[in-house]
Parts: sequence; structure tokens; C-alpha cells
Amino acid sequence: MFQSYDSHSNPAQHVPRLAALRVELQARGLDGFLVPRADAHQSEYVADRDARLGWLTGFTGSAGFAIVTPDQAGVFIDGRYRVQVKSEIDLGHFTPVNWPETKAAVWLRKALPEGGRIGFDPWLHTRREIREIEAGLVGSEIALVAVETNPIDAIWKDQPEAPIGAVRLWPDALAGETAAEKRVRIGAKLRDGKANAAVLTLPDSISWLLNIRGADVPKNPVVLSFAIVEADGRVAVFADPRKFSSDIRVALGNEVTILPPEALTPALTNLTGPVVVDAGTAPEQVFRLIESMKTEIVESLDPVIMPKATKNAYEIAGMRSAHLRDGVAVTELLCWLDAQAPGIGEKPLTEIDICRKLEELRVAQGILDISFDTILGSGPHGAINHYHVSEDSNRRILPGEIVLVDSGGQYGDGTTDITRTLPMGDFDPSIRMPYTRVLQGMIAVSRAKFPRGVAGAHLDALARAPLWMEGMDYDHGTGHGVGAGLSVHEGPVRISRISDIPLQPGMILSNEPGYYREGEYGIRIENLIVVQKTDSVDGRDMLDFETLTIAPIDKRLIDPSLMSRAEIEWLDAYHAWVRTELDPLVADSTRGWLEAATSPLLG
Amino acid sequence: MFQSYDSHSNPAQHVPRLAALRVELQARGLDGFLVPRADAHQSEYVADRDARLGWLTGFTGSAGFAIVTPDQAGVFIDGRYRVQVKSEIDLGHFTPVNWPETKAAVWLRKALPEGGRIGFDPWLHTRREIREIEAGLVGSEIALVAVETNPIDAIWKDQPEAPIGAVRLWPDALAGETAAEKRVRIGAKLRDGKANAAVLTLPDSISWLLNIRGADVPKNPVVLSFAIVEADGRVAVFADPRKFSSDIRVALGNEVTILPPEALTPALTNLTGPVVVDAGTAPEQVFRLIESMKTEIVESLDPVIMPKATKNAYEIAGMRSAHLRDGVAVTELLCWLDAQAPGIGEKPLTEIDICRKLEELRVAQGILDISFDTILGSGPHGAINHYHVSEDSNRRILPGEIVLVDSGGQYGDGTTDITRTLPMGDFDPSIRMPYTRVLQGMIAVSRAKFPRGVAGAHLDALARAPLWMEGMDYDHGTGHGVGAGLSVHEGPVRISRISDIPLQPGMILSNEPGYYREGEYGIRIENLIVVQKTDSVDGRDMLDFETLTIAPIDKRLIDPSLMSRAEIEWLDAYHAWVRTELDPLVADSTRGWLEAATSPLLG
Repeated sequence: MFQSYDSHSNPAQHVPRLAALRVELQARGLDGFLVPRADAHQSEYVADRDARLGWLTGFTGSAGFAIVTPDQAGVFIDGRYRVQVKSEIDLGHFTPVNWPETKAAVWLRKALPEGGRIGFDPWLHTRREIREIEAGLVGSEIALVAVETNPIDAIWKDQPEAPIGAVRLWPDALAGETAAEKRVRIGAKLRDGKANAAVLTLPDSISWLLNIRGADVPKNPVVLSFAIVEADGRVAVFADPRKFSSDIRVALGNEVTILPPEALTPALTNLTGPVVVDAGTAPEQVFRLIESMKTEIVESLDPVIMPKATKNAYEIAGMRSAHLRDGVAVTELLCWLDAQAPGIGEKPLTEIDICRKLEELRVAQGILDISFDTILGSGPHGAINHYHVSEDSNRRILPGEIVLVDSGGQYGDGTTDITRTLPMGDFDPSIRMPYTRVLQGMIAVSRAKFPRGVAGAHLDALARAPLWMEGMDYDHGTGHGVGAGLSVHEGPVRISRISDIPLQPGMILSNEPGYYREGEYGIRIENLIVVQKTDSVDGRDMLDFETLTIAPIDKRLIDPSLMSRAEIEWLDAYHAWVRTELDPLVADSTRGWLEAATSPLLG
Repeated sequence: MFQSYDSHSNPAQHVPRLAALRVELQARGLDGFLVPRADAHQSEYVADRDARLGWLTGFTGSAGFAIVTPDQAGVFIDGRYRVQVKSEIDLGHFTPVNWPETKAAVWLRKALPEGGRIGFDPWLHTRREIREIEAGLVGSEIALVAVETNPIDAIWKDQPEAPIGAVRLWPDALAGETAAEKRVRIGAKLRDGKANAAVLTLPDSISWLLNIRGADVPKNPVVLSFAIVEADGRVAVFADPRKFSSDIRVALGNEVTILPPEALTPALTNLTGPVVVDAGTAPEQVFRLIESMKTEIVESLDPVIMPKATKNAYEIAGMRSAHLRDGVAVTELLCWLDAQAPGIGEKPLTEIDICRKLEELRVAQGILDISFDTILGSGPHGAINHYHVSEDSNRRILPGEIVLVDSGGQYGDGTTDITRTLPMGDFDPSIRMPYTRVLQGMIAVSRAKFPRGVAGAHLDALARAPLWMEGMDYDHGTGHGVGAGLSVHEGPVRISRISDIPLQPGMILSNEPGYYREGEYGIRIENLIVVQKTDSVDGRDMLDFETLTIAPIDKRLIDPSLMSRAEIEWLDAYHAWVRTELDPLVADSTRGWLEAATSPLLG
């Protein structure tokens, strides 16, 4: 079982931890301390050892931070977590702060006396974050002080050890490029930029570069590590050597050295510049160590990020293969759900029941892990954007409710992420308008053709226009980058109003418009798509998307009279393809359901 | 007659001017000099006195610059002017340089020896421009040297005097806010930003602020001037006092002082900081003068720009009124054109004939000036984006050709800008597809609804998507800001991939997608639109557009089978409104044509 449905911990246990931290801070002469959600790699999923924010405050969301002072403890959370945080923290001792509306520096200026000293762990914050806080403190007498050791680690008696998940190889046949070729390519890129080396701090960059995968954190099969790439293509990896079997070491070859984590600091101070470091992702401490030797730093994007984001034909083929098996699992779930729907099936059905069934169907298709915690939002839970069902929140699904299932798997050859929305039996037909508008937005992006140079910021409106025309919208991005056998949320490209990186062939993105009615239901329809070259007129370099996701889109919720003929044709063609692909693979008992679910809207 | 059709001057006359400039530069110890198209106000239309680039090189385009060295004279022009420049400059002495592909600094590093001194007039370049060139020269031994007096002015014996067009008042009833109220509002904004004053260098900012208009340059009714606004709302204007009659002085009141241009330098050196100056528009010299006294500068957007861009109800009412009369003129032109079309009319028709007829019809509606030179592109000329017909380029229109008419007027109450595309008699029906796609893009923007926060960068794709789907596109923005009785191209907001300023109620924009087939035809359809609040669901703050432009859109070029019902309904509703508005106002002979031209597509 991959997903955990544990209820939230007892808020009371966090009060003594907070008191202990304050004692520790006082002993160190600090007037406050920043407690980020992040680890040193800015990971979305952190190892238990790095779950300091949750340990201290009880808040379990995937983003946010706390600031603890002698008399206040602010927990900074964004719009997704404003409700959740209240059930997780002890409101008598911790105070939720709306972020990013209230910036850390603004809060600090009010909370701290003049001359106050606020500590932070320079391994857990990027240079960009520290710069922003420092800029916000200009003109105040508050000092931001880097600590040598983390005060939470000092008081956390039973803090778990760092994980030592075994490293496995990602086959060259799936990577389409050997690790040696990748190292030479990145090295050449450094030379072109007149740099001698680059410091990599993102585990997915290092895992991609060396064609390896790990088992350190759930959901993301990355190897927690740092690395230094030299312009000649040699790589030093800083990670617990116990993760690397001798077979893996042999496969990595002589030009890849495995060094223990404690070797990183001396390695950084011994670098010959110029050195590329990414201020948006690398820890402040990496900069400080290099700067301490007056070594020249070139601040630029991690050089692996763009090569990793633009998947080659082999990576895309692996993703297609993973999506075929994932489509079987999802289709079998949808068929099963129709049979189990309340008022139809024999037993009452809960959110956790559906999650477990889906996991079971994906295990049958060979997943190594789920790619994120399934968002199974029934009825009003569907309107909570990052709802995570627990034993506490779990609810029985009622007849006529709408169920949103957002889930994905990590397969041996790729990563999936799919959302479908469906009714449990007879439903209030008023949902058809918003559902159809969401579908039209999803289709508009799926069908889009655009010239090279266009970014996600420019396509975002295509997904929203059908909702906008009704005076409606959704408060999340339209799509995120997706890794190939890596993180399901992969930078840097997105379909969102603020993403100005031009789309390039091979980039894989989610396409997931939605609509949410608080207290009632959530709608989201999501496929993964990959950018590819397409035909043009006038010699223009035009791109479009190939769809990767293979599973029926619920037709019962559609109002076809709202759709254009071209939109209906797209949906019918999609469903014809889904049927052709899945028919040979689904269980016999699913085949009839699949045929009905994928029949054309246009008679 | 407002528009001039003069042919280009004789390229030969520029060679002795170039030689004279080189002698002058040598005498001053300079190895080169930058000759921008701009005046000290970065005006789109410059006074004759400031047309230094044209005087020196012969190039008459609206953007670009030259760099003259002892042995080279590069004329830097963007994509719009690559063809035109070759017919205007003497290619034996001047060399066209593709810009911005080749940056000034890169060219200079090749053209100048180490230790070279390149002069520039610090009144004619913004701080941002100079910074960019300096950044590009870092690491070279080339010095950028500000000259005290312009060397071209020194050799230009018959250089015209600066214009002294009479200043008139812009009525409070049209402005919707007295100049005194505006001054207080801008002053309060400065106080909010803890500034003591702002330097205004944009004539349209000053004209808007003081509710005045001028007659210094063609097409843009601005008063060429500088100004200093104090935080208490007092304003000093630096302009030739002869422009201001005693009535105007009385109307401006005691808190507005008119000072001669030469008073600006001492005023800048006497400022008490902090002073707001806009690095993107203010001359480098303004910064240098203030910095020479160590006065604190706050670099930020000219504080008048955003208030000016968001028109109030009175300004919008004036614009509506101007568009009504402009619609009469354009409609009468379209009716006349159908009667005169080659093969139909009695006399052969040329591009200049149409421009003159349109100007005559607009004069009858009371224009004070045209708002820009009419782009009258017949047949292949339609594909030249900024085509300006001259006696040399003028051509007879042939039966079946497509004519693109992009034009506008400056009225006493507002500014217009409209493009219509129409066939001259029977035409090749293959144009219907691109014409319909362009129209669909125009309609998509016209109908768009969107939440507050959305910028032009996000809406741009709506205008292009119908063309993109065919593998087609256009190489210009979708829309520009438009002033109310001011510049037809007004910053800062645009509908373009790079415009990230959120749209706000009252902003007036053009909406002008197009399609161009080189050597054959150009298509563009343009209306002006104004952002307004609209209905929302879920309490969202939604905006949409009101259309200002009132004139039939050619229906003969449409393929209705490509359009959705909603699109056709929009067009029919637009035409019904056009007919209702114009029917009482057009000539009797036009009424029948108007009725046919605005009849619904949907029977």
C-alpha cells in the first residue's frame, strides 16, 4: 500500500516542541527562527527526517513555512491550505498567516524588536528566498543570521535517519541517451558558457543526468544527492555511499565519483570558477561556501533542467507505454465505480475504498509507486483543491454526487497523472454547463496549434475562455511539467499566466482546467500532452500537442449543445483512439463498458 | 491636406552631409556618433527640426538609428523597414544593419578601435538605452561620451526652428477632471511614494495632466514640453512661452508656471529629492543633471502614464462621439469604393485617390488632423505592414484586388483608428478562409470576458488561435493602447505576447489581427475596444470589452461555414448596432448601401 490515510496527529504534542525550540533559540541568542517546509533540495516530497515543519507545527501541507519568535509562531500557508491548517495546528499556540499576501519580512518587522536576530538554516533556503527576505528587511534593524546547525534537529530527539534507498539504473533504452553522453553534453554546455563546473542540487536533475533512480522519498523516484559536474563531463555525486551497490558503481564508470555528503563542503570551497549555480533552487549555503573562497559564480538555471524538460523520442515512447497500462487501470476503475455507485452497488462506498481500488488496479499494471497522493474528492470534498483523504475526513459517497479522481503512477518506463470527474448515479443536470465548459477548455489546449516562441502564459487563456465567458474561472494553473519516470511536478515549464518559457518539442505537460463550487462539487479533467512539431503554412515553425493519456472522459456530464462540431469531433476521435488502444488490454468484464463509454457523441 | 505623398528625397544629397558630420566629429575628437530617430521626448512623430536621422541618411521610417564612424555608416532598422530603407539610402555610403538582431554595442565593438570614443547626445537617448549600450560595451575599451551640443545641429545650416504650435484647452467636460484635480491627484501619488517631485518628459503626459493640446507635430496633438510636478500639485512647464496665449495662462492658473526650455537645466539641478524619473522614457541627460547635485532619484514609471491609460466615463464618452462621426466617414468611403471599384467605376482608381477621398470625408466630419498616415495597401502593398503610399509607390488598383485601409482621425473629442479590408469587385474566393480566420480572432477578443489580473499577453492567443489552427500567424501585436484625443499609439498597455500589465476598466486598445501573403494581399480588421466591468459568478471581478468603432465589416470575404453560431451572432449584433447608429447620419446616397452591408449573415 503506497498511500497512507493516517489521521492528523494530535495538535497537543506540538506545544512542548514549540517550547523546547524557544529555549534552544534563547540559548543561541536568537530572537526567532525560520522553519521552512523544504529540504536542502527544495523537494516536493521530503524524507521523514526533513519534515521539520510538520514535526514542529502539525501542518502537513506541501508548501509553507513557520516563523517562531519568543511570543509568536506564525504558520504561513497559501490559499490551498487555509482550511486544512486550522484542523492541524493548535490555534492557541500557532497562528495561521495568509501567504504570499503577508510576506515574511513584513511579518518580521512587526514581530521582532529593533536589533532582533532571526535565524535560518542556510541549507534549507534558496539564495533567491533569502535575498527576498533581506530586501524586505532593508531599513529595519533586524538581522537575518545563518545558523551553523539546525536548532530543530538539536531538540528532535527521535529524528529519523536520512534515507538510504537503493539506487537502480534507468535503462539506456528508455533514456535514449547514455549517462556518458549526457555528461559530455552538459559539460559542453558549461564550456560554451565559459564555466568550469556547475553545482547540481536538484535530485531529479542528478537522477536524469546519470540515468539512475532512487527510493529515498515516496512518490518521486529520485536519488537524494548533490553533484558537481565539471566542464569535461566528470561528475562527483555527494550522497550516502550505501545507496550505491557495486554494480551501480561499475555502470556509472570511472568518471562518476560517489562521495559522502560531508565531502560536499570541502568540494565547494575547492572549486575553480566560474561555477554555475541556480539561485532559484540551490541553497544559500552553497553560494556562501563558494563565495567564501572568492570563486566566481555564474547565476543561471541548473544546466540540466532544460535538457531534462525536453524529452527525446525514447523518453516519450516510455511515457506512451506507461500511459497505456495506466489507462487500463483507470478504465477498470471507472467501470467498477459505475457498478458500485451508491444506489447501484451493494455496499456503501467511501473515498478510501476508491483510492484503494485504484491503487490495486495500478499495482496489477506494475506500478513501482503512485506518483502523488490520490486526490479523491467526492461531493463537497471535490472543491478542495489539494484534498487528501484521511481516516478522519473519509466520507461515504451519496447517490447523485460528483466524484473527482486525480491520480497517477510511477511505472518502470514513465510517470502518469490523470484526472477524471464522474457522477455517482443520477445527478443534478445543472452541472452539465460547468463540466462542458471545463471540457471545452481542455479540448482547446489539446487541439491548439501555435508558433514556436509561444509560452504557457499565452496558452493559459485558451483553457479558461469557455469558463470566462460564463463569468467563471479556476484558481490554479492549467498545467505543469511532468518528468519521464521522475517527478510528476517538474519545472520549469507550465501552462500558467506567469510561465514565459517558450514551449519546445518534447516538453510534457498536464492539461487540467477545472471548476469548483465550494461546499458542492469539484470538476477537473486532465490529460498529459507532449509538444511536437506540426505542419505550417508560410514556412512558419508550428507546434502542437500529442495526447498521452488514454482513458474515457465521462460523457454523461456533457451538454453537447454547448459544444462546437470541431470540439465534438475531437472528443469522438479521442474516444475512438482510447477504445482501439485499450480494448485488447482491459478485463473481459470491462470491454462492454469501454465500448459504451467511448461511443461517439455524433451519431 | 494632412497626409503627404511626397516621394523620397534624392539619396545623393546625403553623402555631403555624412562627410560634413565626419569632419565635425574629427574636430571634436570623436571616433563615432549615434544618430537616433528620436527627439528628447521619444516621440513617434518628430518635428522637422528633430528629423536628424532622415536629414543625414534619407531614411524616413518611424524607428531606427544610425552610427557613423570615420569609415562606416550603419543604418539600424527593424523588420518593418528592411525593404524601404534600401530605396531611401545611398547604399554606396550607408549600410543597412538588421536590428535588434545586431545590437549597437556588438556593431561598435567591431567598428571601433580599442580606446575608441563614441559620442551621443544625452537628450536624445533614454537612460535605459544608454545602460543597454554600456552593458554591451563592458570589457571593451570603447568609451561612450555624452556631447554638450549635437554635432548634426552644428552642420545643419538650414535646420528648421523648433515648432511653436499654439496651445489650446482640452475642455473639462471631455477630460472629466479639471487640471487642478489631476495635479492634486498626481501630487498625492508622489507623496504616497515619499517623493517630492517627478520630472515629466512625455508630451502626452503633460498635455493630459494640464488638459491642454498642441500643434507642434503632425498627427499627435501634444504640446512638446518638459514638466516638473511637485508633491503639492504645482507644475512647472518648460516650453516656448510663445505657444501659450494669455487666455491659456489664465486658465492654467497660478499653480502652473510656464518657463522657457533653457530654464529646465537649472530647474533640474535645483530639485529637492527624492525625484521620480522614468528610465524607460526620460533622457539620460535628465538623470545626469539631477545626479550631478547628488539628489536622490526614484526610478519608476512616469506617474501620469497609468492615470492617463485608464480613461474615465467622460473621456470614453468623447471617444464614442468621435467614433460615431468617424464611422460615418469610413462608411461613406466604403460605399464610394464599391461604386468606384475598377471594372465598375468610370475612372481608374489609385491608392492616393482613396486616401484623399477618405481625408475629405473625415474633414467633412470635423477632424483636426489624421491620427496617423493612412496605410492604404492595395494588392501586394497590403502585405507590407507599415506601407506608406507616396507618388513613387502609388499604384492603380486592379479588378479583383484586395484593399486594406488602416486610418484614423483626431477629432475635437477623441481619437480613432480603424482598419477594414475589402475586395475590388469579383475576387479569388481562396481569400475567404484567411479573412474569416482573422475575423474570428477579432471577434474572439471583442467577445472575451476575463478576470481582473489578466494582461494583454494572455489574451493575445485568443486573436491568433483561429489562424494558428490553419498553420498561419501574423508578425505584429494584436493591439496597442490608444489615447483620448492624444497619441494613437499610447503606452503602456498592449495586446501582445510581451505585455504583462493587467487590463483595467477604462483602458482603450486596438484589436487588429491580420494575415499577410507576401506579393499578393494583406488582411487586417481593426476595431477599438475599451475595458469595462461585467457580470460574474462566484463573486469574481470580471472584465470585458465595449466596442467603440462603428463601421461595417466586409461580409463578401467571409466564409460563414467556418464560423460558430456565437461568432455569427456577434457579427450580426455588431452590424445591427452599426446600422442603428449610422443610418440617421450617413448621406442619403449611402443609406441603401449601409443597409445591405449590415444585413445579418443569419437569415
